Amino acid sequence: MSEAVSPLARPFPAMPPISGVTLRIARAGYKDWGRCDLTYVELAPGTAVAGVFTRNVCCSSEVELGREQVKAGAARALVVNAGNANAFTGYRGREAVEAIMAQVAAHLDCPPAEVLVSSTGVIGVPLPKDKAQAGVAAALAAAPCDWEVAARTIGTTDTFPKGASAQAIVGGVTVTLCAIIKGSGMIAPDMATMLGYIFTDAAVEPRFLQELLSAANRETFSCITVDSDTSTSDTVLAFATGKAGNAPLVSFDSPGADAFAAALRDVCRQLAHLVVRDGEGAQKFIAITVSGAVSDDSACRVGLAIANSPLVKTAIAGGDANWGRVVMAVGKAGEPADRDRLSIGFGGVWAARDGQPLADYDEAPVAAHLAGQEVDIEVDLGLGEGRATVWTCDLTHGYISINADYRS
Amino acid sequence: MSEAVSPLARPFPAMPPISGVTLRIARAGYKDWGRCDLTYVELAPGTAVAGVFTRNVCCSSEVELGREQVKAGAARALVVNAGNANAFTGYRGREAVEAIMAQVAAHLDCPPAEVLVSSTGVIGVPLPKDKAQAGVAAALAAAPCDWEVAARTIGTTDTFPKGASAQAIVGGVTVTLCAIIKGSGMIAPDMATMLGYIFTDAAVEPRFLQELLSAANRETFSCITVDSDTSTSDTVLAFATGKAGNAPLVSFDSPGADAFAAALRDVCRQLAHLVVRDGEGAQKFIAITVSGAVSDDSACRVGLAIANSPLVKTAIAGGDANWGRVVMAVGKAGEPADRDRLSIGFGGVWAARDGQPLADYDEAPVAAHLAGQEVDIEVDLGLGEGRATVWTCDLTHGYISINADYRS
Repeated sequence: MSEAVSPLARPFPAMPPISGVTLRIARAGYKDWGRCDLTYVELAPGTAVAGVFTRNVCCSSEVELGREQVKAGAARALVVNAGNANAFTGYRGREAVEAIMAQVAAHLDCPPAEVLVSSTGVIGVPLPKDKAQAGVAAALAAAPCDWEVAARTIGTTDTFPKGASAQAIVGGVTVTLCAIIKGSGMIAPDMATMLGYIFTDAAVEPRFLQELLSAANRETFSCITVDSDTSTSDTVLAFATGKAGNAPLVSFDSPGADAFAAALRDVCRQLAHLVVRDGEGAQKFIAITVSGAVSDDSACRVGLAIANSPLVKTAIAGGDANWGRVVMAVGKAGEPADRDRLSIGFGGVWAARDGQPLADYDEAPVAAHLAGQEVDIEVDLGLGEGRATVWTCDLTHGYISINADYRS
Repeated sequence: MSEAVSPLARPFPAMPPISGVTLRIARAGYKDWGRCDLTYVELAPGTAVAGVFTRNVCCSSEVELGREQVKAGAARALVVNAGNANAFTGYRGREAVEAIMAQVAAHLDCPPAEVLVSSTGVIGVPLPKDKAQAGVAAALAAAPCDWEVAARTIGTTDTFPKGASAQAIVGGVTVTLCAIIKGSGMIAPDMATMLGYIFTDAAVEPRFLQELLSAANRETFSCITVDSDTSTSDTVLAFATGKAGNAPLVSFDSPGADAFAAALRDVCRQLAHLVVRDGEGAQKFIAITVSGAVSDDSACRVGLAIANSPLVKTAIAGGDANWGRVVMAVGKAGEPADRDRLSIGFGGVWAARDGQPLADYDEAPVAAHLAGQEVDIEVDLGLGEGRATVWTCDLTHGYISINADYRS
């Protein structure tokens, strides 16, 4: 954890234990950090798993293996390494991951494929196998810890620990979801990475869990951006231990499936927002809502074009209601748009409608809105019913300082 | 022109007159600048024109009109307004452009469609028709000026005037190309825009001139990026007066066509580099060469993904040979790539080969290379014969200061 906490930080919430989930941490010593850097999560037999992963084609061995592992749908343990991304490390990096899987599998007497591993941190340095194995051994012998401690341990350049929880009633049974996430700080030569883990005591059939996680991901993690750079290691995993005792959810026809899906989406959105709130150099949290697009997907792509525009992000940093830059970003998004139907507003006040600046546009309330920490941008394309909201942060001197003002 | 000149600036070159091209400037007073802001270029009867324009769908009226005008292939005049982009201004913006076209056409006794107009500067404010018409009248009565004066007058937040020239021998006749360009500074609430104009005394049939300009554009202007934000007004026009007396070039079968094409491409590349050298906050000029791609287009898209990555650009700003960030950018480009065949180098020294860091990688010469103003990044995808070079600048505190540290 960095010392300077993001001005957009949120306190870590109270989060109950999840039956069937035990957290432990240890110090593998991947970096000269003086703190624990290895998180071990033991999961009860029968735990279902689902996952979504980075689409970066230069992904890490952990991501390659994880993609295959979640297809089988069963998990007994998770190991998270902080300080070394193990990406772009060839066969040596893969060997270290397989060694961790074998070590934990022997301890739990389970197939190695049921042990998931994630790593973030330095790229291009193979994960040191001996440090990893000593760290795992220490974690297996450690006392259980709570969510906040685990959330701190998976972090790298994060400035605050991030967690979220929710409950739902499923067939008369209350189920709980607890989740932690890390991201998106980066420090040379480290690389920003988002790792998120959601745990629930609900019983959910793995394929349905995957369907729900993928759907939630499309509206949450896929709708945030800090700087448009896609990490090689991004991973979100959902684990369902089944200890709550509900009748297993197998499809949307199962009683309570909708409630569980809503709770899962809620947790994912909370986590996604926390990552943006810890975006490098972030001073403002920006929500961009695009309506009137030809489809929801199109609205999302237009929103991301705005959210990734350095000119829009610097304008917001400067408190400048520069709707011309929003017009530019809409126009370059590569999606259907009609300049003469386009409307743009800030904080609920339209600045331009139907392709022209409003004659009676009053900038005073907009300036007041932009002076705050939470900024809303509204874009109406005027073409259809498609709609999406994306979230980002502003682009400030802090981002440059974090990423340029040093030499490796 | 801004007072602080880019450290990457180049002196304005000696450029000869082009027969059939007369430059004049005037002050329309679009902004409170105390300098001329309207450039008028008169072209001899029979001048051929070709153009390439922004693909931003929220483009200005000037761009919409220009696209149609270059199809006819004939031009008698060009008017360039500095300080007002006239974008997102609806029918009132279009009326101002049509008024300028009519005024000049009456003066020259030519069709209004042969008068091209460009504007850059503030977005969302209709070009004031009365100021424009008074400015045009003053320019028509002004004495001719030279290339450097015109290059300064078309600029907005540029920090130095930009020009380039070349010669070629076409069927035994020496032809000359002279060109000026502006971009890519921006100051709130202005918008970065690139406007480039190439003038030649060669005789070139309009359709062939368009073919040559489009081809040169793909390898030059389309291969530069400062900040990934595509302007609503980008325009490059080529004018051929035919006064050199060569037999008109109609296709690559015409004697001297190859030489002319090479000279045109050379001028376009010079102009494109000058724009990058005036990129906002630029301290380093970066050339990224991608080889081994499945096609040249694919290589270009991978190169642009690297050139647009804020993490790569800040690493270069910090003099950091962070090849992990280059790997990340390759992986997110959406193009075919194989992590385990990927090689990355800086200034001719490979840092990673075939998906792994080199064991004997010596960072000393790379660090020395990155300490300079001219940085080369080499990427070999190891898949095919596709190749491209793209150019960009680093991302520094200067960029943030220019675009965020003010309020409109």
